[in-house]
Amino acid sequence: MTDLSDLGEFGFIKKLKEKFGTNLPEGVEGIGDDCAVIPQSDSYSLLVTTDMLIENIHFLRKDISPKNLGYKSLAVNLSDIAAMGGLPEYAFLSVAFPANLNTAWLEEFAVGFQELANKYNVLLLGGDTNKSSNDIVVSVTVIGRVKNEFLKKRSAAQLGDVICVTDFLGDSAAGLQAILESLPRDSEIDYLIDRHYKPKPAVEEGLWLSEHPSVHAMMDVSDGIDSDLKRIMENSDCGVIVQVENIPISSTLEKMSRDYNFNSVVKAITGGEDYCLLLTIESSSFEQLKAQFQEKFGRPLYRIGTVTTKDNGLVYRDKGTALKMNANGYDHFKKR
Amino acid sequence: MTDLSDLGEFGFIKKLKEKFGTNLPEGVEGIGDDCAVIPQSDSYSLLVTTDMLIENIHFLRKDISPKNLGYKSLAVNLSDIAAMGGLPEYAFLSVAFPANLNTAWLEEFAVGFQELANKYNVLLLGGDTNKSSNDIVVSVTVIGRVKNEFLKKRSAAQLGDVICVTDFLGDSAAGLQAILESLPRDSEIDYLIDRHYKPKPAVEEGLWLSEHPSVHAMMDVSDGIDSDLKRIMENSDCGVIVQVENIPISSTLEKMSRDYNFNSVVKAITGGEDYCLLLTIESSSFEQLKAQFQEKFGRPLYRIGTVTTKDNGLVYRDKGTALKMNANGYDHFKKR
Repeated sequence: MTDLSDLGEFGFIKKLKEKFGTNLPEGVEGIGDDCAVIPQSDSYSLLVTTDMLIENIHFLRKDISPKNLGYKSLAVNLSDIAAMGGLPEYAFLSVAFPANLNTAWLEEFAVGFQELANKYNVLLLGGDTNKSSNDIVVSVTVIGRVKNEFLKKRSAAQLGDVICVTDFLGDSAAGLQAILESLPRDSEIDYLIDRHYKPKPAVEEGLWLSEHPSVHAMMDVSDGIDSDLKRIMENSDCGVIVQVENIPISSTLEKMSRDYNFNSVVKAITGGEDYCLLLTIESSSFEQLKAQFQEKFGRPLYRIGTVTTKDNGLVYRDKGTALKMNANGYDHFKKR
Repeated sequence: MTDLSDLGEFGFIKKLKEKFGTNLPEGVEGIGDDCAVIPQSDSYSLLVTTDMLIENIHFLRKDISPKNLGYKSLAVNLSDIAAMGGLPEYAFLSVAFPANLNTAWLEEFAVGFQELANKYNVLLLGGDTNKSSNDIVVSVTVIGRVKNEFLKKRSAAQLGDVICVTDFLGDSAAGLQAILESLPRDSEIDYLIDRHYKPKPAVEEGLWLSEHPSVHAMMDVSDGIDSDLKRIMENSDCGVIVQVENIPISSTLEKMSRDYNFNSVVKAITGGEDYCLLLTIESSSFEQLKAQFQEKFGRPLYRIGTVTTKDNGLVYRDKGTALKMNANGYDHFKKR
């Protein structure tokens, strides 16, 4: 007899998927990408995603403000829609709160949720309010739409593609460390904590990138690129080389890593919850797309690696030298 | 400062609805009916519903089998789709389990969920597996579709309509009483408990009824008709007379009410979780529709009342005598 922890994070849903088989109608995509895809016509499909946040597992009530929790519970779902090139349209919010939670807390939660919903014209169409015995539980489902020709999947990476991310990596994880270790606050620590609590779903970037056929595979960075790249590898049947020296790391994270003596690259690779986009681009189109992206969004598409053959696996290189991961992380990485 | 309990069951989501305003695109229906309605074309709309079940609030782990919990977590959502005349198509399942839950429990949960999903060809397209500190949480979202001309709402009741239900009322609530009071088991108590744990969503009935223009308002019986009729009254701006002597009560419930000395009519009216359909029908079409329903489903459409003007309110009559409710329930009802 084994317990839940043996199943891993997606184990139970994966098991259910096996039970349900894979005989889906044509064009319907189930478990395995950022969203489910449900075609509605020759021209467009619905995207559906759902995420649950649980007190003491995903957040601590004493640390996160209700406003930030409301914001983040929607943000992580909008990020999934963005990851497939979609436009988020409708949200459903189910909540369970202990009976002694005061209404001021609830109202602040609503303010945070609404702030982000309004930004993207996402309409709240339903939900469920419940009591809980102890812990706060928030479950959000978002429905979006995407033109079929613009749909981006994890499975579309091609040999030789350039691998990019749309923002700095590791800031959110550094912010989480600052929260958990109650580090002294200054404007830089506050910036990192804000990146953890208020991630910016890359909705505009996802929509813009989806219109370019040279963008092949796309997903959001939720678990850290070390995990997320493995999902692209599994789905696209490919390998990956990451050029460690090209991983975009903010000067704020660099400074914190020096002050608190940790490896910023490991944080950037394994930290997760960045909620920027990870994508692969036809190499011949990369420079032009990068220039257009810079013009449109005022920051670079960060080139971090290359798609290789499957037998190559996941390889990290630092200026030409291959690195290996062990149980303590990528300890061959030099400190940055 | 008030706490969550002051907001009532739907208070928080209703507050959010107010914050979000009511400027929905044409044809889109948000909070206030069994499902959200999202038109996709001139011919059809999507229906979306979501429900959360929480340990120690909605169920006790020691009492409900994992298989029944899996079944019921889907059933309550299918019932919402049925209530608007829709065909359920896709499900999303988010779960939170304490880490010490064994895999046998999880597998049984999946078996129960799958049993009902397979019955209605509902495909599991996604979800989220999480740890929780203590309590099991299950959140299910179901998407269905309905032809626009067949969509049934709570707001469509018309003056003079006959009010019907599609099955016995009160069995589920009696089963819950048997569970909570650990009543001695026999085949009749087992039947009632089964009605509580394995409610039958009226999917076929809802689809069939939706095709008849003489069916006006429709919803499912989730909180008991005393609450549910008030929702139809609010949404349709009408009043209601219920003929208490016509409320369908199973012989099993009658027997239990005698054995355990409670009022079966009060149980039937206020118990809830029956998950049959409550509907209003153009009076001139009722007899014909009732005969067709009997032929199709092998049981009657139970006529329980009439739609009146709003100023009439909600009135219960027992063979012509008006009854009043007080804090102890409908204590003027004679024992049946």
